[in-house]
Amino acid sequence: MKIPKPTIKRLGLYYRCLNRFKDDGVNFVSSQDIAERLNIKPSQVRKDLSYFGEFGKRGLGYNVKKLLGEIADIIGINKEWNVAIIGAGNLGTALANYPGLPKHKFKVVAIFDNDREKVGKKIAGITVYHMSDLKELVEKMNIEMAVIAVPESAAQLVVEQIEETSIKGIVNFSPVKLRTSLPVEDVDITLSFETLSYMIINRMLGNEINE
Amino acid sequence: MKIPKPTIKRLGLYYRCLNRFKDDGVNFVSSQDIAERLNIKPSQVRKDLSYFGEFGKRGLGYNVKKLLGEIADIIGINKEWNVAIIGAGNLGTALANYPGLPKHKFKVVAIFDNDREKVGKKIAGITVYHMSDLKELVEKMNIEMAVIAVPESAAQLVVEQIEETSIKGIVNFSPVKLRTSLPVEDVDITLSFETLSYMIINRMLGNEINE
Repeated sequence: MKIPKPTIKRLGLYYRCLNRFKDDGVNFVSSQDIAERLNIKPSQVRKDLSYFGEFGKRGLGYNVKKLLGEIADIIGINKEWNVAIIGAGNLGTALANYPGLPKHKFKVVAIFDNDREKVGKKIAGITVYHMSDLKELVEKMNIEMAVIAVPESAAQLVVEQIEETSIKGIVNFSPVKLRTSLPVEDVDITLSFETLSYMIINRMLGNEINE
Repeated sequence: MKIPKPTIKRLGLYYRCLNRFKDDGVNFVSSQDIAERLNIKPSQVRKDLSYFGEFGKRGLGYNVKKLLGEIADIIGINKEWNVAIIGAGNLGTALANYPGLPKHKFKVVAIFDNDREKVGKKIAGITVYHMSDLKELVEKMNIEMAVIAVPESAAQLVVEQIEETSIKGIVNFSPVKLRTSLPVEDVDITLSFETLSYMIINRMLGNEINE
């Protein structure tokens, strides 16, 4: 089965949206309800969910709790992931402090850095370890994801160290295209600025943009 | 004309990719060349570019320099954007230091914070100003974009202050859905972790994922 990546991203948005419905005490929602909150088309919601089977019932809509469970299964957030941040600079520190990660089952359990000055300190309650301890601690702490928050010049070297461990995937904040056989999700912040730039100029031109 | 948002994001990726071709001295590329570098389908590249007119020539492909210019026009990066970062914490500091922004024509010209201790200091060479000076400095410095890098609890208040200025759009790093009539691009870092989570479990299951 080939699933488009934008669909995966939207599943994450549906998950957030359904959680809000659940908090509001809503038991059933339509694709229209979800679409309205997210400012997208109901047909998009139905199409995205249809990749994974028949969830809704005609006339009744989707059972909120059941759909939450199904999406959690699909995305893989029915379990907690142990995450290591590589790089204890400003970005690593910002990520360690980011409340969204533990809230969505991504638990930062360790931070790694090459700077001996930083090793042993705590950031947001999480200990900074030296890179040379990566392999050992990945095993011990059952770390499955690594976040690359090091300068551009160090990114590929870090990947090679990650590959010697049992880490299963990488979230990459460096602007480098990493060479690795592991799954990588590149976070390119500049793309968000470009999307905004596009939205601003097209709003001035009176063009519409779809989500 | 309704353009899907994923298309806009991919235009940014095409732009990066074409720049690399240009640096390699390549004058003409096919949709296949672009698609291969980005690990997507050539038909996707052609479809995305077709929203904006006929760029390529059959048999010859796309003129790299010309297409770069066209995409820059479409996304609005044929000009430099002056950007203000709101919030001089770890995230604001990381963003001020991020080399990708000036490289892509997003120039951080000022940082704003409510903390008088931080006001007057410099981060990555950029001065931190007090929030009360926002309106005046936005005019003086011709700031068009604001980045929200403040804690969740302060985000909506900051938006209201931004709305009193001539700022035209917001890149929002807070996990709050902002209430504003301005264009907003939400950067949800957790979604990247969820995409990775999906990639990891589906690799284990042997499923394929499209870009």
